[in-house]
Amino acid sequence: MFLKDYSISRNQFSFFTEINTRWRDLDAFDHINHAMYLTYLETGRFDYLSNIKELKKSIIMASITIDYHKQGYHPSKLYIGQKIVSVGNSSFKILASIFNNEEVSPLISSLAVIVCFDFNEQKTFPVPEIIRNKMK
Amino acid sequence: MFLKDYSISRNQFSFFTEINTRWRDLDAFDHINHAMYLTYLETGRFDYLSNIKELKKSIIMASITIDYHKQGYHPSKLYIGQKIVSVGNSSFKILASIFNNEEVSPLISSLAVIVCFDFNEQKTFPVPEIIRNKMK
Amino acid sequence: MFLKDYSISRNQFSFFTEINTRWRDLDAFDHINHAMYLTYLETGRFDYLSNIKELKKSIIMASITIDYHKQGYHPSKLYIGQKIVSVGNSSFKILASIFNNEEVSPLISSLAVIVCFDFNEQKTFPVPEIIRNKMK
Amino acid sequence: MFLKDYSISRNQFSFFTEINTRWRDLDAFDHINHAMYLTYLETGRFDYLSNIKELKKSIIMASITIDYHKQGYHPSKLYIGQKIVSVGNSSFKILASIFNNEEVSPLISSLAVIVCFDFNEQKTFPVPEIIRNKMK
Repeated sequence: MFLKDYSISRNQFSFFTEINTRWRDLDAFDHINHAMYLTYLETGRFDYLSNIKELKKSIIMASITIDYHKQGYHPSKLYIGQKIVSVGNSSFKILASIFNNEEVSPLISSLAVIVCFDFNEQKTFPVPEIIRNKMK
Repeated sequence: MFLKDYSISRNQFSFFTEINTRWRDLDAFDHINHAMYLTYLETGRFDYLSNIKELKKSIIMASITIDYHKQGYHPSKLYIGQKIVSVGNSSFKILASIFNNEEVSPLISSLAVIVCFDFNEQKTFPVPEIIRNKMK
Repeated sequence: MFLKDYSISRNQFSFFTEINTRWRDLDAFDHINHAMYLTYLETGRFDYLSNIKELKKSIIMASITIDYHKQGYHPSKLYIGQKIVSVGNSSFKILASIFNNEEVSPLISSLAVIVCFDFNEQKTFPVPEIIRNKMK
Repeated sequence: MFLKDYSISRNQFSFFTEINTRWRDLDAFDHINHAMYLTYLETGRFDYLSNIKELKKSIIMASITIDYHKQGYHPSKLYIGQKIVSVGNSSFKILASIFNNEEVSPLISSLAVIVCFDFNEQKTFPVPEIIRNKMK
């Protein structure tokens, strides 16, 4: 809905994180609960950004939009594709989609606004150059 | 970010659901984890719509945007305010904000697109009149 | 099973913590998931022990046994009763039961072995006197 | 504690399920939360018993004991070993341990009492022969 300007397919992404579902990810409707996708994306984001020491414990999510395209089931092997799609002064945006197994179209897609924020100084800081480079 | 067109304060809402945090809602940064807010909103949504028998097990979330304004902590008493802000043919939108204790400005705000969907027939159905009436 | 030596009724407890279920506590069988009770008990334990500054971030669970007596549902108001039933040198045991609403017999009962452990020094320390006094 | 009669090492098990931790499995102490192990074990149990059609949606957990031996961290690859250690009329016991990566001694060990229960008829039924055979 919100993400309609992004037509998303699997080959747009070059970085993937693999996630296996758990039985408890299902809710009382027997589908993967919609909140679980935020948890999957979070694990993917740590994987994507974990080598960037300038961001250690210093990013906060300001906003996220998720579009739900298909139902997810257990057991499934999921693949999270991520890429940085825009960089501002102290924030950047990550587009991420989750694909079931070999499927080309995603279960869900998301756009997150991430802010570089120093918890000790309680203020924002400029987006590290390494993030800008990832976008290219 | 995405919700900037909605300036949100507590007195915009007339329906509230109370939620108590749990210690496990905290994550390794000692803040309420960002995905927990979807779970809070979900419980609030069941509370808001539970008397509408036309919707029993027949709504699906098509999209949600969440803006994170402040950090949440444990233990806290939270209040979820909800209202229906637009109604289409087979979908409607719920604006929801979560307030900490007596605070006037929200911890988070969200806009969800809900689709009326019959799982048995696997097709959408018109938004029930009772939902339209709730918007007035 | 394991707790058979404890015949448990509500009037054995004098300390209670109230918990409201959430829709997401249900699993695909439409019952409160069995792991959720550990999360309820954890929140109750923080409530029970939170004023004891000698234990701040310094207790670890060594073992827990849970007996499941009845199914739980959403929405429910639950009451966690807790008491300390034995104290050793550097560990103590908490008996805890969870009651649905006004019911006299518990949904679940549990016995946890808690160890006083200093994470900085990486060694156990004696159970504080205040814990021994709670048992009387 | 409770399981002291079982001296557990990795080579006691012949059936293993692999689990990858998620960042959200950590709690505010930066360790894998103790309740998560029940969720890991649950996924393992579905894996272990999923081919036994006589048990479909017809087992309930009556009791579980968990001993916590070491702290868990993220990211980790965990291996759940399971075996049936006793079979009664309508219940059986599963001993399960979770091992970190290649380690020989477990992070946690557990003993679960599982009851064969027909939800439709609301009564127990005899343990299927295939479960007895698994024990041999």
